[in-house]
Formats: sequence, C-alpha cells, structure tokens
Amino acid sequence: MNYELKTVDPRFELIDTARHFYRKDWMVGTAGNLSARLADGSFWITASGRSKGELTASDFVRVALDGKVLESAGDGKPSAETSIHQTIYTLFPEAQACYHVHSIEANLVSHFTNGDDLPLPCLEMLKGLGVWEENPKVTMPVFENNLEVRQIASKISDRLRITPPKIPALLIRDHGITVWATSLLAARNYIELVEYIFRYMVAARQINS
Amino acid sequence: MNYELKTVDPRFELIDTARHFYRKDWMVGTAGNLSARLADGSFWITASGRSKGELTASDFVRVALDGKVLESAGDGKPSAETSIHQTIYTLFPEAQACYHVHSIEANLVSHFTNGDDLPLPCLEMLKGLGVWEENPKVTMPVFENNLEVRQIASKISDRLRITPPKIPALLIRDHGITVWATSLLAARNYIELVEYIFRYMVAARQINS
Amino acid sequence: MNYELKTVDPRFELIDTARHFYRKDWMVGTAGNLSARLADGSFWITASGRSKGELTASDFVRVALDGKVLESAGDGKPSAETSIHQTIYTLFPEAQACYHVHSIEANLVSHFTNGDDLPLPCLEMLKGLGVWEENPKVTMPVFENNLEVRQIASKISDRLRITPPKIPALLIRDHGITVWATSLLAARNYIELVEYIFRYMVAARQINS
Amino acid sequence: MNYELKTVDPRFELIDTARHFYRKDWMVGTAGNLSARLADGSFWITASGRSKGELTASDFVRVALDGKVLESAGDGKPSAETSIHQTIYTLFPEAQACYHVHSIEANLVSHFTNGDDLPLPCLEMLKGLGVWEENPKVTMPVFENNLEVRQIASKISDRLRITPPKIPALLIRDHGITVWATSLLAARNYIELVEYIFRYMVAARQINS
Repeated sequence: MNYELKTVDPRFELIDTARHFYRKDWMVGTAGNLSARLADGSFWITASGRSKGELTASDFVRVALDGKVLESAGDGKPSAETSIHQTIYTLFPEAQACYHVHSIEANLVSHFTNGDDLPLPCLEMLKGLGVWEENPKVTMPVFENNLEVRQIASKISDRLRITPPKIPALLIRDHGITVWATSLLAARNYIELVEYIFRYMVAARQINS
Repeated sequence: MNYELKTVDPRFELIDTARHFYRKDWMVGTAGNLSARLADGSFWITASGRSKGELTASDFVRVALDGKVLESAGDGKPSAETSIHQTIYTLFPEAQACYHVHSIEANLVSHFTNGDDLPLPCLEMLKGLGVWEENPKVTMPVFENNLEVRQIASKISDRLRITPPKIPALLIRDHGITVWATSLLAARNYIELVEYIFRYMVAARQINS
Repeated sequence: MNYELKTVDPRFELIDTARHFYRKDWMVGTAGNLSARLADGSFWITASGRSKGELTASDFVRVALDGKVLESAGDGKPSAETSIHQTIYTLFPEAQACYHVHSIEANLVSHFTNGDDLPLPCLEMLKGLGVWEENPKVTMPVFENNLEVRQIASKISDRLRITPPKIPALLIRDHGITVWATSLLAARNYIELVEYIFRYMVAARQINS
Repeated sequence: MNYELKTVDPRFELIDTARHFYRKDWMVGTAGNLSARLADGSFWITASGRSKGELTASDFVRVALDGKVLESAGDGKPSAETSIHQTIYTLFPEAQACYHVHSIEANLVSHFTNGDDLPLPCLEMLKGLGVWEENPKVTMPVFENNLEVRQIASKISDRLRITPPKIPALLIRDHGITVWATSLLAARNYIELVEYIFRYMVAARQINS
C-alpha cells in the first residue's frame, strides 16, 4: 500500500476498511457509511447506495462541516446519514474518522434496554476502547431510529454535547453503531471491539434465555 | 472484470455472484439457481447439478420464457426449478435477474409462521429493499414445498398475479428464498439484505426462546 | 488445475478439499481424514497428525484394502482411522472416496438421540443426498466412540452389511461424520450437505430450547 | 515460505499465525499476544498495541526470561502481558511457543464455573491435546482477571508450579486463553483445538438453556 497516498487521500484506506467490514457482514447490501476528515475540516464520505465491498475512489463525496458538497468525483450523492457525521465532527474536533455499520448483533443488543443507555459487560476488550479500570461500569448511549436522519443527528448533538460517552461510540436502535476516533486505524479497531462486545452480549443471552 | 463482456453476457456476473453465495453457505453442494434475462426475453440459468462455487460459462442453459431450451454450451439440463424463474419473469416484466438460494436461516424462518405470510421485523435494512416507511409492516409470501416444482410455480403465479409482495422476494418452506430485481447487482443486494433479516430473526428467537 | 494429474493422482484433489474443509472448521488442528480409491483397489489416505489446511502430496499413505501400507512418500503413518476407510471400501465396492471430518455440529447432534439412529429433518437438501421423496423419513446410523478405532470399524461393518443406510453417511458420537461416494466431487458435496443439515438441526434446537 | 528463515527467526511464523487468528476473530482490535522462544532462552513477543492482522517483523520485541528488553526493531514496547509468557517459559522449560488469544467463546465459558477449574466435555478432539483416555475427565485451570497483569502471572506461577494442568492451557476470566507447546505448529493446533472445544461448550449451553 502506498502510505504517502494514504496520507494525502484517506479514501484508499476507507475502501480497504469498507471491504473488510463488508466481509464481516457489517455492511451488507449498500448499508453503512464511512468518513475521514481532511486538514481543511471537510471530510470524504461514502456516496449513497454503493456496494461497500467494491468501492472505488469515485464512490465518495467531499463535504464541508456545514454539509455543503464540495467535490464528487463520481456524480454520487452524499450518504443519507451525512448529518450524523457532521454532528460527530462538530462535537469532537479531535475526531479524524467516523464509521457507521449495521451488524445483526448491534440491532439485537439495541433491544437489550428500553432506555437510552446500554450497559456493557466487564470484558478485557474494554481496554482497547480506552477504559482501564477494575470492573468498569460502561454504558453506551442509545438513540431511537427515525426516517428523518436529521432528527437523529439533532438528538445526538443535544445529548452528547452535554454528556459525552465514556467510549467513542453510539447506537441507533435497529440501525447500527457509529464510532469515531483520532485516526482511521483506531476507528477500525473500535468497530471491531464494539462488535466483539455485541457478539458476546448476544451469545450470553442465548445461553441464559 | 471486463464490463463490456458483462453487458453482452451476464453469465460472468452470475458466476461471480454464485461463488460469493457459495462462500456464504447459501448454495452448498449444488443447491440453488441463478438466472439473468437477455434483451430478447430469454434467460440464462444455471444448469442442474453443478457446484455453485466453481461455475464456468458452460454450466448454464439459455431458456425461452415458455421453458424451451434454446442453447446449452455444456450439454447441461436446465435447473429443476426453471419453472419458478419462468413464472417470475412472466409476472414481473421489469425483472432482469432472479436468484434462488438455500440458507439454513431461510429454512428456519419458514417455520416461524404456519400461515402463508411471514412478518418481517422493523429493521433499517428494509430501506435497501425499497421500504421507506416509519415502523413498516412488511410480510413475505410463503409457499409450501413440493417435489413437483411446477406445482410450486403454479401456486406462485396464482397468488402473486393478484397480490404482488411489497418486497421482491418469496419463501418456499424448507427450500429457501427467491428474489428478483431490475439488475443483477440489485438482485445480489436483495439476497444479502433478506438473508441478513433472516439471520436477525433466528438470533432474536434464540434469545427469546 | 491440471485435470489429467487429478485423474492419475487423486491426492491433489484431496489436498484442495482438505483445505476447504479446514477453512470451514471441520478439520481443525490435525483432525479428520480423507481417502480416495485407485483402480487397483488400494487407496490414498491422509497420514496421521498432519495439519489439514496445508497438506502436500507427501502427507499421504497408500494402503491396500487389507490395511497393508503400500507406499508412503513422506515417511508418514496411515491415519489412526484407516480401519474405518477399509470397512467402507469393503462394504461399498462402488465407493471411490471416503471423507471423515469433525464439525462441532456433528458432535452436538450425535447427542440428539440416545439410540443408534438419528432422525434428519425434511429439508430440500436431502435431494442432494439422493432422497427424492415427499416428506422423507431419513435416519442416520450412529455409533459409539471408542479409543480402539478397530472396534468402531467392526461395529460399522456388522451393522451396515445388513442394513445399509439410506444416505451414504454415518456418525460416530462425539467424533464426527463419515461419508462415501462414487466420486471425489460427490463426497465433497455430501459432506457439505450433511453439515448443512446438522447446522440446521443445532440452530432449530437453539430456538426451541 | 522460506523455511530456513523460519528456523532462524520465528517471527515470520508468528506473523502468519497472528493473521490466521485475527481472521478467526480471536485477536480483534489489537488483542492478544504471541511469543516464541529462541535457543538462548530469550523470546520474541508481539509489541503492545499492534493490529494482529497485519504484523511485520518490526512489531516484535525480544525479551529475556527475566523480562529485560533485549531488542526492539520497531521501537515497540513488549506486550502488557509479557509477565505471563515469562511465567510459562520459566515453569515449562520444554515450551518453545506461548500463544494468548481473546475469543468470545473463551470469555463465555470462563463463566461456566464459579470456581477455578473448568470441566471440559469428552470430545475426540482432546486427543489432539494429548489426552488418550476412554471418557477422559479433564479440567482447565481458571484465573481471575486483574488490571495488574503481574498479579495474574504470580497466581499462575504459584498454582501451576504445584499442579501443572493435564493439557497445556489456562484460562483468565473475561480475558481469554493461553496455551504453550514444544513447537510453534503445535501451539497453533492447541489454540484451534481449545477454541473448538469452547465453541462446542457454548453451543451446547445454547441448546440446553
């Protein structure tokens, strides 16, 4: 891989990561969207309706923090969920990448609570998400799904501005996980770790049902 | 991939998709069959009894809409389930591809109802199947299996002519899913989305059992 | 793949199939063994203790029907379970391949009956195993495991000589499945189909538990 | 693969094995660590915080048996769990490799006992771990997790010095499995076999819940 290219254009790493997530069944059909921020504050995000296992550089749109489309190599439209990425980059200036995927397990665990906080189990894996505590109590914020994605984004903004979560992740009910991180590699690791925890939670329920 | 070839001969994309589905365990042994319609109304369909992970262009038969075999590069016989493909292409003139696969989950969910309609859960994934509604109520038509496939095809024709389903998919009990679409890519995405929903349904039952 | 080579020496296809089964988690560690019969009645069988994901032609031993080692390219010893292969080739002269793998699901379903016959569900997939009936009643013979493999082989011989099973497969409790077929390709398909049925049975129990 | 290189430098085989385990979801994010002992008694161990699917030779640190860092090609720090590897190599002089991975199933089964011994089922697979008995009774030692890894290492040392386990493996609650072996290949096989047994145990509980 050409690392210089990756530095100047994060799309190549996003393509590779999307293929990886697609193969894990976290981006089936055309589901999910990935973005990476550039030095000028704008971000590249996957265009709407593209198969995530076979993206090319023209399957991205560059968007300003206010949502204005700045560049679209392949006449694509930005993902319908761009407003959530805008919200994350606005709330967390250190975030360089924001990834949203739709695993089966994320949908299942979103029903493990009726409220708006999902308690996570005390697994060693939490260390990878930045939690170094004995018997940590960690919850993940849960938001209701809504046909109008801007409504979801607005609720995320209102809540996380006041109470940022302990780990950089949020869950939309029946609609999957969103994580953010200070690098693309860290964001990929966070997705893997969160999905691991969700699979653990689902399997534990299947045992104790 | 040679896109011009794909345009003139859909068998190359069918080969690629069959290998993908085989690797997902949706076409184990020699199970399932894929077809794509040509401009003249005839369609290429996988020949009977071929391993779906390693198809070649000679593992297909070209069939007219009335079932007559027009061309068989590799002395194959059309799939035993050709009559279902004929029915779909007759009922839905816009359909360009028809895919039938046999996942374990499709078999399991076919018993989640004793009737002939399977309710689907309200997942975001339904959008990929064309359902953009708040809390959508979607059901999938279920048909009884029958050693005589023409009997199944006849029941499909009788029912779907009058009440076409909300999403382009039907389920045969203990025998897997069939989808159709206006392009080969869309049909592949539909299979992925429907199988995702089935896996969700199975896992949810394992939790709530 | 060089098909002429495959014709004269089945080890190349056995290597490929073992890698496939290894990747499915059906031959983890060094578990399982595959054999193919030659025109002179002897058979190549995987040598004992080799990793099944990375076999080479020297990881096989050629054995006569009476168990005598005829040829061993890589100073290997025949699999500890060679006596079961001898039994199958003796009982079923038409068998050209005999495959034994150790899936988790095969172990689980071996406890779904306390007796020596495991009922299989009425899935369309049974057709691939040669059963073309409406609502077929098929059972699979189950044998107790034993440290002394010759004891298992002897029980198999005694029972199947009198009552050959409807489908060419038998199960050893806690020890996996054995299938046989008139070609290597058919044996591979049979393993896939039987394992599919076992996975279905396990998932159905997890739902109805 | 260059086998001479592998003999003189085990890092190449560790890289390959880590990629294999990563693909099995046993080393997600940057979890887990692998080591191999050299002729002089020191050992190469994965550096802290590296993605296990894409290691290079500079992602390792060479450590003496007393924990002193001897060599670090890529300015890495030794894994936080190095003290456990030191303990294993000290207790078992014949051990040439020590592998630690974090599967979901290992975490689940660590709760199948409240005590410090986990009973394993009587599967044929135990033979691959060195247990050749009729109906073997095998348990695996379980240790409590602790933020301070040296505390875990100390407990392992105290216990296993007096009562070495029947199979070369130990489990840390919510934190995964550690195995050791007289060769890198054997250690890889042991991980596969132990994880197979854990998956069996989880699936059996899901059936009998």
